[in-house]
Amino acid sequence: MATINQPRSETAGKQYKVLGTRPIRHDGADKVTGRAIYTNDMQLTGMLHGRILRSPHAHARIKSIDTSAAEALPGVLAVCTGADFPDVKDKIAELGEGAVNLAHLSANVMAHDKVLYKGHAVAAVAAKSPHIAEEALKLIRVEYEVLPHVLWVLDAMKDDAPLLHDNVYTEELGGKQSDKPSNIAKHLHFEQGNVEEGFAQADIVIEREFKTATVHQGYIEPHVSVALWNQDNRLTIWTATQGSFTARQQTAEVLQIPVSNVTVVPCEIGGGFGGKISIYLEPVAAILSRKSGRPVKIVMSRAEVFEGTGPTPATFIRVKLGATRDGKLVAAQAYLAYEAGGFPGGVIGPGCMCVFSCYDIPNAVVDGYDVCVNKPKTQAYRAPGATQAAFACETVIDEIAEKLGIDPIEFRLKNAAKEGTRRVDGPVYPRVGFIETLEAARNSDHYQSELTGPYRGRGVASGFWFNVGLKSAASASVNPDGTVTLVEGSTDIGGTRTTVAMQLAETLGIAAEDVIPRVEDTDGVGYTDVTGGSRVTYATGLAAYHCGLDIIAQMKERAAILWDCEPDQVEFADGTFTGPGQSATFKELARRLLETGGGIVGRASVDGGGATNGFGTHIVDVEVDPETGKVTILRYTAVQDAGKAVHPSYVEGQMQGGAVQGIGWALNEEYYYDADGRMRNASMLDYRMPTAYDLPNIETIIVEVPNPKHPYGVRGVGETPIVPPPAAIANAIYRAVGVRMRELPMQPHKVWKAINSQE
Amino acid sequence: MATINQPRSETAGKQYKVLGTRPIRHDGADKVTGRAIYTNDMQLTGMLHGRILRSPHAHARIKSIDTSAAEALPGVLAVCTGADFPDVKDKIAELGEGAVNLAHLSANVMAHDKVLYKGHAVAAVAAKSPHIAEEALKLIRVEYEVLPHVLWVLDAMKDDAPLLHDNVYTEELGGKQSDKPSNIAKHLHFEQGNVEEGFAQADIVIEREFKTATVHQGYIEPHVSVALWNQDNRLTIWTATQGSFTARQQTAEVLQIPVSNVTVVPCEIGGGFGGKISIYLEPVAAILSRKSGRPVKIVMSRAEVFEGTGPTPATFIRVKLGATRDGKLVAAQAYLAYEAGGFPGGVIGPGCMCVFSCYDIPNAVVDGYDVCVNKPKTQAYRAPGATQAAFACETVIDEIAEKLGIDPIEFRLKNAAKEGTRRVDGPVYPRVGFIETLEAARNSDHYQSELTGPYRGRGVASGFWFNVGLKSAASASVNPDGTVTLVEGSTDIGGTRTTVAMQLAETLGIAAEDVIPRVEDTDGVGYTDVTGGSRVTYATGLAAYHCGLDIIAQMKERAAILWDCEPDQVEFADGTFTGPGQSATFKELARRLLETGGGIVGRASVDGGGATNGFGTHIVDVEVDPETGKVTILRYTAVQDAGKAVHPSYVEGQMQGGAVQGIGWALNEEYYYDADGRMRNASMLDYRMPTAYDLPNIETIIVEVPNPKHPYGVRGVGETPIVPPPAAIANAIYRAVGVRMRELPMQPHKVWKAINSQE
Repeated sequence: MATINQPRSETAGKQYKVLGTRPIRHDGADKVTGRAIYTNDMQLTGMLHGRILRSPHAHARIKSIDTSAAEALPGVLAVCTGADFPDVKDKIAELGEGAVNLAHLSANVMAHDKVLYKGHAVAAVAAKSPHIAEEALKLIRVEYEVLPHVLWVLDAMKDDAPLLHDNVYTEELGGKQSDKPSNIAKHLHFEQGNVEEGFAQADIVIEREFKTATVHQGYIEPHVSVALWNQDNRLTIWTATQGSFTARQQTAEVLQIPVSNVTVVPCEIGGGFGGKISIYLEPVAAILSRKSGRPVKIVMSRAEVFEGTGPTPATFIRVKLGATRDGKLVAAQAYLAYEAGGFPGGVIGPGCMCVFSCYDIPNAVVDGYDVCVNKPKTQAYRAPGATQAAFACETVIDEIAEKLGIDPIEFRLKNAAKEGTRRVDGPVYPRVGFIETLEAARNSDHYQSELTGPYRGRGVASGFWFNVGLKSAASASVNPDGTVTLVEGSTDIGGTRTTVAMQLAETLGIAAEDVIPRVEDTDGVGYTDVTGGSRVTYATGLAAYHCGLDIIAQMKERAAILWDCEPDQVEFADGTFTGPGQSATFKELARRLLETGGGIVGRASVDGGGATNGFGTHIVDVEVDPETGKVTILRYTAVQDAGKAVHPSYVEGQMQGGAVQGIGWALNEEYYYDADGRMRNASMLDYRMPTAYDLPNIETIIVEVPNPKHPYGVRGVGETPIVPPPAAIANAIYRAVGVRMRELPMQPHKVWKAINSQE
Repeated sequence: MATINQPRSETAGKQYKVLGTRPIRHDGADKVTGRAIYTNDMQLTGMLHGRILRSPHAHARIKSIDTSAAEALPGVLAVCTGADFPDVKDKIAELGEGAVNLAHLSANVMAHDKVLYKGHAVAAVAAKSPHIAEEALKLIRVEYEVLPHVLWVLDAMKDDAPLLHDNVYTEELGGKQSDKPSNIAKHLHFEQGNVEEGFAQADIVIEREFKTATVHQGYIEPHVSVALWNQDNRLTIWTATQGSFTARQQTAEVLQIPVSNVTVVPCEIGGGFGGKISIYLEPVAAILSRKSGRPVKIVMSRAEVFEGTGPTPATFIRVKLGATRDGKLVAAQAYLAYEAGGFPGGVIGPGCMCVFSCYDIPNAVVDGYDVCVNKPKTQAYRAPGATQAAFACETVIDEIAEKLGIDPIEFRLKNAAKEGTRRVDGPVYPRVGFIETLEAARNSDHYQSELTGPYRGRGVASGFWFNVGLKSAASASVNPDGTVTLVEGSTDIGGTRTTVAMQLAETLGIAAEDVIPRVEDTDGVGYTDVTGGSRVTYATGLAAYHCGLDIIAQMKERAAILWDCEPDQVEFADGTFTGPGQSATFKELARRLLETGGGIVGRASVDGGGATNGFGTHIVDVEVDPETGKVTILRYTAVQDAGKAVHPSYVEGQMQGGAVQGIGWALNEEYYYDADGRMRNASMLDYRMPTAYDLPNIETIIVEVPNPKHPYGVRGVGETPIVPPPAAIANAIYRAVGVRMRELPMQPHKVWKAINSQE
């Protein structure tokens, strides 16, 4: 695994003691020995087990629910339905990561009057054992009026489509609403330059249409929550969540209780990828606990995870690009229709922002549509909305490059977004590292090596994702042995305990192992936004850095007491405090804190701001079996700008993990629906995610173009690597067998069909 | 219950919104519903149960221990003995609350070569069930060489007494050591003025000798610890402790591992009173966990608590006082010999400092002796060492007052310590409230009422105790609804979550209920010394106050952003921020924090300094049954200076609880030893603590003379009330039946004998 350091900013080329090393992760022993506590490990005295009854219909009105027989079953202590949820109509919760429509959130957690997808929660039971709870579900009588359903975004946009919500109107950019209710909840429109003039200048114009399927994040740990509604009306929730403060606020708002009455304990998490931001089980377990007076645990089955939580949407995308003969993009147009699922609020926004985000194109227009269909409410999935958009754009890019006879990397280099490029949705890039990833890809052993043999092809694609900033807090306490305990609020889904701890260690001039990080619950740490948007190593790292500065300032005061001088006469550098004729290492001074006024606690709360941008370029070699259409990945290299790779192994891990998820999305994964709107492959066996047998080792090249907004140049790295794979593989398939695949997943039967219709 | 506010300092008479009110305690619901988590509630996966083998002999050399049969018993996973403990000879651990001799601490936790008292731990076993562990104990073969033992301090001081340690020499003040080993580990000597000249000026001189028995703190929860030695050599300990950082350091030092490898989780505690400061089970459970690879829980039986933990010492005290005819004390002399138990380091120090601490006496000399005997190593018990000393001094005071025909309260008022009084051990008092407690006692309904009837008498006694300062940290985070979560490190043995939270609430101008306090483990909070020395409401309250100031300073910066002004243009008073033409309550501003840069975290770490002093005066009416000698408490009033009573109900509770423990000590409690050095009443049934049937309601009068060292005038209140009761009751018995009792406990048979030998 190579790391290419590009010293192009003032922080680049800096020598670090801790950053860039690969210490053993602090939670490593707990994870590999099974001692880490996941939510399902929670066993509370008197705990009940909850189970959820789910709709068998894709679209129906609930006429009545009779829970009396379930309530009468011995061992059942509480039953709840939508009627137990407070009315939150017209309320909007302002969360750090965006506003949430509470009525929709509440109705998604538990259907109130309509079920909008198969698997939609309808009622819940808490009983002394999970078996009794399941028996009780069978005793609940729900009378449905089944309604026509719609399962595909383009169908749902038609005037005569079954309408999911009679109170959802199309919102235009600027706030205008449509006259009549619609499945189209939002129409986004961005433009810059003059796209008609742009296309007029083009020597080549290509327009293509694409379809992608609904796919799931596929985290290994199902959703699970334990709630204890205490007699003093304080509610404690142990849950698998990406954001403890988000879960706290969403739960409090849905239940209409003060946020400070709720403590959310984020247990270890077995994967999230965006799918564990929204609440599902938390308020249900809470209501069952309130009604029963007992703690209640609810664990989803794998089928419930597929059918009852939020996948990333199926989409329809049309992309049109125009370029001059010498390979300069002059105009771009995109039409993106993204499924929102049963409730409005899908990932169309970032889809629109990302579709052309890799390129400097003077004239562009993008239209996006957020469309309700009778499928689960979609949620974020690693760079949400960007992979679908990149599949479309990067395939057309490849086609233009090929038609113009320009190497695909060279073509991208001619048009690459750079400092000063204005994105179609408005922002102008600061220093970014896209060109450097392209150069590194071009110069890589992989790209320089020759690929030979029949039915083999090499594809390239690039990808972009934001690093959102948002808010993080940290506090830290110095131990008498010179180690430091660090308290943070960012749930650790990718090794961020260690990458945040390393930044505190670097700041204090101590070893990574000398920082003892801990992820605290919402009562033990300052407000911290969700783990998502590739933000934790960046923003919580920034909090740790400022926390370190607070510690250093206080330690200077202590040194001044010991050395009988003024605090501003004490300097700190390279882990050593120096005063008039005196010096002490961090550890030496730490040992004397109790003589000089007690321990030291540092703290910081930061707003990561509008954050920064991450770019990557992937190269893939495939071999297509012409007889079956099966695509085999021969070699795969991911190149990415990490700003500063705090812990290179974790950056590599993120790049590899993202690439693998993208490969699954490209080749295998989809929600397969029958005509009744029922998912027919809701198990890990039938929902075909790639395994180690399907994949070569993913090679990685880390590029470091420091982020000017972070003292150590850190950029987020978690999401970008899922963006290029489907396009890269589609491009490779074309180079192998001459067919352009424009529908995901590119399963053998589709590839086979494409090859054979071509012939 | 009356509260008398004496506005004599600059902080007195201040009007508070929160302090002085009586909110429901934050942990109330958890405590009364059984949801609070005590250490014995911990159930970890794969947890083993430990049991400890204890010496049947009061004094013996361990010739050999054969654990092979125990190790072979199915279900036994680990056995440990003193041989498993690292050699810590000559090491001294510097703890916040004083130095600890590690070799002695280690050998007290588990005997290494000698057993020094019956009940001394010798070996331990961890097994799959407590029953198997107990069976295994029976299979351990220990070969002892039984040695002669000594059980009473004066016997142990003799030249020919059995010697407990051949490496303990008598240490004189100044550091000189005796030539040969001795049971007398320390001789303290304090003096001021010229005591011979003082006695020469006296018109009346009285000298008396006193004995007190060994008594136990009698906390309801036995000692219990759970340890998990993780594969990464990090050790987590859940334990019933008064000081999580103390337990962390003691355990780390005894095991010779870095303190930062140890996390101590202080669970809820069922009483401590000083007896849960030293470690007992923690390192044993840790070693068993390391050896077995499993978590290990050890719970003591009640007999183990009596025989294997630290009671307060039996003592011999001689007090001589001289006064002039008009009632002015002119000279005082005391000789105090306190049992240390099996290892040096008893409570003789505070005994010497407290014996004359209530009085302004120009000439005084005090000699104290710390003496090893074959009983459990003594530990702190609420105002450690002071009750015994006060029993002696206050009885002689009463006798002089009576002989001079002066009312006992008037006599004390003539001699009361006040601002400027120099204590015999050196310190000069700042503003203290002793005179005010005496005046309040004299003016009380109780003292003003007449006591009539035969065999009835009224006694008075006063008492003194320090408030140690020591170190505390706190951090706090502001919620978007204007509530504040508070993290502190002081284990809550007396409602201090609430008294500390109230001080933060007062500082921030919000309600007590708007602060959500939490006691964190050693990795989640800054360094905090032990809960003891009546220090938490004072010193951790001070940390909360400074933490509040840190929050206010940051909120001013946020207000300045919103109001487009400079932070120093923003004022804060009465819970409201005011800027140029703008104002916002704390809650209003808190709601806007996320717009202005994120949440706010405050933090403070304070050194409470040499702290302050608490005085109390108790009045008791008794009736003595002349036929049986039984003493019945008819009425009891405790008066005490609280500085500022933060939560008056808790101050009253401390006064009542201390008085009741003192009454038990006075009348019933003692370790009853047979000739072989075996305690014969090691059960709650036989060790007669007072119950509600034995007692009237304890009346309380709170006096408030603000502590000039605390912004709200707070003094510690927990310990002073145990000091006066034995003397007050002895004085009342004298007034009832004319006999001066000079030995504790004053059981019926002793009182009967005294009455009958008098006649």
